[in-house]
Amino acid sequence: MLGRIIDHTRKASPLVHCMVNLVTANDCANLVLASGASPIMAEDPAEVCEVVSACRGLVLNLGTPSPRKIEALLLAGAAAKAQGKPVVFDPVGAGCSDFRRSAAHRILQEVQPGVIRGNASEIQTLLRGTVAQRGVDADDAAQDPLALALKLAQASGAVVVVSGSEDIVTDGKTAYRVHNGHPMMHSVTGTGCQLSVLIGAYAAANPGNRLTAALAAVCAYGLCGELAHKRLGPLDGSASYRTYIIDALYHLSADALEKGARYEIC
Amino acid sequence: MLGRIIDHTRKASPLVHCMVNLVTANDCANLVLASGASPIMAEDPAEVCEVVSACRGLVLNLGTPSPRKIEALLLAGAAAKAQGKPVVFDPVGAGCSDFRRSAAHRILQEVQPGVIRGNASEIQTLLRGTVAQRGVDADDAAQDPLALALKLAQASGAVVVVSGSEDIVTDGKTAYRVHNGHPMMHSVTGTGCQLSVLIGAYAAANPGNRLTAALAAVCAYGLCGELAHKRLGPLDGSASYRTYIIDALYHLSADALEKGARYEIC
Amino acid sequence: MLGRIIDHTRKASPLVHCMVNLVTANDCANLVLASGASPIMAEDPAEVCEVVSACRGLVLNLGTPSPRKIEALLLAGAAAKAQGKPVVFDPVGAGCSDFRRSAAHRILQEVQPGVIRGNASEIQTLLRGTVAQRGVDADDAAQDPLALALKLAQASGAVVVVSGSEDIVTDGKTAYRVHNGHPMMHSVTGTGCQLSVLIGAYAAANPGNRLTAALAAVCAYGLCGELAHKRLGPLDGSASYRTYIIDALYHLSADALEKGARYEIC
Repeated sequence: MLGRIIDHTRKASPLVHCMVNLVTANDCANLVLASGASPIMAEDPAEVCEVVSACRGLVLNLGTPSPRKIEALLLAGAAAKAQGKPVVFDPVGAGCSDFRRSAAHRILQEVQPGVIRGNASEIQTLLRGTVAQRGVDADDAAQDPLALALKLAQASGAVVVVSGSEDIVTDGKTAYRVHNGHPMMHSVTGTGCQLSVLIGAYAAANPGNRLTAALAAVCAYGLCGELAHKRLGPLDGSASYRTYIIDALYHLSADALEKGARYEIC
Repeated sequence: MLGRIIDHTRKASPLVHCMVNLVTANDCANLVLASGASPIMAEDPAEVCEVVSACRGLVLNLGTPSPRKIEALLLAGAAAKAQGKPVVFDPVGAGCSDFRRSAAHRILQEVQPGVIRGNASEIQTLLRGTVAQRGVDADDAAQDPLALALKLAQASGAVVVVSGSEDIVTDGKTAYRVHNGHPMMHSVTGTGCQLSVLIGAYAAANPGNRLTAALAAVCAYGLCGELAHKRLGPLDGSASYRTYIIDALYHLSADALEKGARYEIC
Repeated sequence: MLGRIIDHTRKASPLVHCMVNLVTANDCANLVLASGASPIMAEDPAEVCEVVSACRGLVLNLGTPSPRKIEALLLAGAAAKAQGKPVVFDPVGAGCSDFRRSAAHRILQEVQPGVIRGNASEIQTLLRGTVAQRGVDADDAAQDPLALALKLAQASGAVVVVSGSEDIVTDGKTAYRVHNGHPMMHSVTGTGCQLSVLIGAYAAANPGNRLTAALAAVCAYGLCGELAHKRLGPLDGSASYRTYIIDALYHLSADALEKGARYEIC
């Protein structure tokens, strides 16, 4: 099942519009290329709608935001929504300022992204805005990632991915717990951003299959983290590790993913 | 002939003002350093003219554009033109939006860059704007890169480089076909941007010799792609390849370029 | 003494707000992670003050400036100052335009950063603005880095680091001359930016000890440049070197720093 997602992506090589950030744009573009898809980067309201029209998927990343970038995210998101193209939303640091928080809530409401990926704290920030009136309280912090993911998926209609020591992937009905990955991935900046554009690439090539595309990306990227870790020599550190993760995705076959994916239905 | 271009660059170590983009700025700066030149990055209308004055060459790249960046490109380009400094123009994604298309045409007309480098589709977009009134029609798409390059070179007065499975370099009179390079270079983001800043570095150090500087850069960068590919181990993928390309340029000698360059006069 | 700075940083893992630039943001984030601290990047006036509040240190870098970025640097700097948090200022290319020069002087006066790091020419540009009325003349250019550093430290109250073939670290009273480092570091873009965020990470974790934190960062980063150079194979060039420097910091122990640091009191 997951292998087919990879194969479709390499075969279709969809153009994916990635609106990322100052820190991780290069790694994200290289990861999309390693997946077999093609990235295009455009960030200004002057052109994003036209760029969306030429693409088969869109990734909206909240990192290093400015009012102009938020305007562009909303415009691009609305265009993709109108055209029925898969949109992945990564609410990077959504809780770190009122500015990001309110931008995240607007994106959620106006764009209604098909996939949302964040860590537990970011997902919780989204959840507060979405369903506040339905009685979500401060106890969220104590909730486990599965409960958070289910709640946001059901409230928003999106496939939700919560990244953490284990990852959750759910559409609000079926939920998967993924065991792939390696703790050293936290030593590399932008692994969350990279996972989000990978979901974008897989979803663009498999638009009718958002849940499986997201699951495949989470398993594949985590597996690459494992394979890259095995490859580390005694002097290799976090920068070599960053390189090896992308190398691993470049070589990842459908078969290797089928064998290496470790997940279960919750 | 080509070797001397490299040697001059390492000896003169010219300061090159690179106006690149969000995705490839780091790679471009490191590639310029590996060529023996020095990069300086500045993107705002508030300072670009002054920065141009301190430099010996300028590279204008259309990637991730905003109205403010376009204004800066035009200002910097006009300053370099007035000072007789080599300007390389890379019309990244020129056809992907009206915004880029019209910005590209303004740069072409107002700056009159000394070198233009793009893929066939980007060169065609430029050509449509330049010589539309002279009867260029939709058949351009069917034209071969050599015809496109010659047409744009003759219409604009620039040395034109068309990147593709083979590369064309021409000043409208003499035309070279370059066979260096490796298909895996398409798996790395920004190889076009990198080639453009390399042309900028070589042209800055060899200002009277635009055509040979461009040819040297195209051969050198393609040769680095070949050398880097030979170096790949079984686990190395596109991210290691990216590193090895820059490594190869760092070590490339005039002699190695003379021996490894594969081109012919068309 | 220096080893303790590293250990505190890994233990405390402070969040450091890094306002860097288009070219080096990714490397800076990865270097901060390799030091054991956590980077957060935010560049817009709309949110920087709130982000500063969540962090234990701030780095202000003048690279690729725009009026909006300068406004954000000043706002963030003022917030950090009000909250008594360590601020490191890196006046990248301060002399390359009037725009940067006047921005640099405003930051110096309004933020009064606790640490300033630059090369001799950047430090001199700052010095001209600070103490012009006290009779600094054009002879500065001829002055040695130690004299420049002492003068700026005394005029500004900051710990000043002057990078060069040897580095100077001083608070205006005690001054250190550091012999760590390798000339090949000039072949990698952004090594100055990286050193500045490393000072920021160490200062954030050791706020009462700015001078020692800065000295530890200068020794540690230079030592990483030496270790990375020893590791180079025959085909490795400047891009592999860039990777190995960050790798080296990832592995650097307190003990290795104590043994490898080479400095003397001037």
